Amino acid sequence: MMKQIFFAKYFQAISLKQTIFLLLLILVFENALILWKYLSNEEKSVNPYSNTVEDRIIFIGGSGRSGTTLMRVLLDVHGSVFCGPETKLLPSLMSSINYFNQQYPPDYLLQKTSIYSKSINEATANFIKYVLKTRKKQENKIICAKDPPILLYMGDLVNYFPKAKFIFMVRDGRDVALSMLKYEKKQYNFLNFVAKLKEWNSINNRTLSLCNKFGPNYCKIVVYEKLVTTKEIVLRDLMKFLELKWNNKLLSHENFMDSDVELGVSGWSNSQVIQPIYNKISSKNWTRQIEDYDEKTVLKEIPMLKYFGYV
Amino acid sequence: MMKQIFFAKYFQAISLKQTIFLLLLILVFENALILWKYLSNEEKSVNPYSNTVEDRIIFIGGSGRSGTTLMRVLLDVHGSVFCGPETKLLPSLMSSINYFNQQYPPDYLLQKTSIYSKSINEATANFIKYVLKTRKKQENKIICAKDPPILLYMGDLVNYFPKAKFIFMVRDGRDVALSMLKYEKKQYNFLNFVAKLKEWNSINNRTLSLCNKFGPNYCKIVVYEKLVTTKEIVLRDLMKFLELKWNNKLLSHENFMDSDVELGVSGWSNSQVIQPIYNKISSKNWTRQIEDYDEKTVLKEIPMLKYFGYV
Repeated sequence: MMKQIFFAKYFQAISLKQTIFLLLLILVFENALILWKYLSNEEKSVNPYSNTVEDRIIFIGGSGRSGTTLMRVLLDVHGSVFCGPETKLLPSLMSSINYFNQQYPPDYLLQKTSIYSKSINEATANFIKYVLKTRKKQENKIICAKDPPILLYMGDLVNYFPKAKFIFMVRDGRDVALSMLKYEKKQYNFLNFVAKLKEWNSINNRTLSLCNKFGPNYCKIVVYEKLVTTKEIVLRDLMKFLELKWNNKLLSHENFMDSDVELGVSGWSNSQVIQPIYNKISSKNWTRQIEDYDEKTVLKEIPMLKYFGYV
Repeated sequence: MMKQIFFAKYFQAISLKQTIFLLLLILVFENALILWKYLSNEEKSVNPYSNTVEDRIIFIGGSGRSGTTLMRVLLDVHGSVFCGPETKLLPSLMSSINYFNQQYPPDYLLQKTSIYSKSINEATANFIKYVLKTRKKQENKIICAKDPPILLYMGDLVNYFPKAKFIFMVRDGRDVALSMLKYEKKQYNFLNFVAKLKEWNSINNRTLSLCNKFGPNYCKIVVYEKLVTTKEIVLRDLMKFLELKWNNKLLSHENFMDSDVELGVSGWSNSQVIQPIYNKISSKNWTRQIEDYDEKTVLKEIPMLKYFGYV
């Protein structure tokens, strides 16, 4: 009995010390946690824009009518990426920012407006990131933008997104030109045909220079004709480039169009991408459809056809 | 006596331990609170876009040559606000976004591109906020942008920044037109003069509609001629509108031009704003400088002159 009381008292007495010690321990731990959290997040919370570097982002571009829609549908079917329909917004934004940057080079900009060029870059990167991350059905996938002219801004985009990947779609300019004339309901004659070919030549030439400049880690050329004839080889290679796992869905994307792919209204290529990929190698339609077709002029005026091995 | 000592001892003994225990308990609780607050705020730091609503921002605009530079210099001298030189960037950005929004109204945009119009608004607001907050010499002051055409985007800007304040500078169009002709090195004749007056009429007409639409909580008209003749009255009233404290520096801004004001290179109004505000009420220079000046035509073609009481 005496012993019990003694122990109870002893325990009580110690318990207070122990409690105090325990509380102190908790305090030290809590404070350490707060301090650590604070220090590790400080840069982030002062500049929430600095984590841009971490972001993966995929851009699909090239001349129009070159399979950019097919490509984005394939990535959407893959499941890890959300490309969705053309954004329309990105080329418009980039063109405006690019034009402004040309008028106001960094030093001049700072002197004249007190604005840092770096700020505009960061703000633009975050604009793009934010709009893409909050798209309908995005669901936390890798962000992606498909807009034919977007690769022309590769220089800026690499700067904004060091982890960007660019897919450059290339297709025989003569099929592209024919498709363009049909799309724009223009007359099928050689003059119109060559005009479209020249546009094709210019956009492919400029995109190719950028693609070569930033190299194979950033930019991948995907030849449409190869994609449709040797689909698995091309896509397995592409998945490596994009650092994505292979997914068999890619081989029969047409089966997943309803569930996985947001088509967007009035996408002109929709009627084509809902079909299986078939060997749609050019049957040289232009020789029949453009009555005054003149191969010599084409060879001379459109050097990119030769570069890509189409002639 | 014994009793007292006993109680004192008892009280002392318990009191120290109890106090320590109590203090520790409070500390633990406080720390837990800090930690909880911090963790619950983490979402905020993940999404830096959510606190837009809180931001105060001031926009200074109106027709060019209407005292917008003087106004921004006054605010810069005040000390709580950083306006700095014209941003140039904001009108360019807003024009591009505005054009895009007109081409793609919200529902159509979402259907066609899977992009939410709200996302574009938020991204644009944050673009502006970020660029302005990171300007040279900004130093955590209230952000402000001075660009003559910026008030034309009041509708969008109110949407982006519910706490925005707009200062609409108005000055006699005939002085403005004369100043424009001088600035652009154009011939002083009635044809050129009226062309400039029509521009002045249009920008003031459109800005006035917006200013009336959003009301006196958002938009304040500052008449240049009143500012230079009754400076203190106008500025005290303005400070109330801006919810800023009065600062006597405002009455002699020319004394603080070096220390407080970032002039920016080749701002055309710089040579004027470094001088004290003097009674520069129009001496009707146009009647002398425009030889074929025709008051009747002006009265008929430029209705805003009458609206603002200049004729």
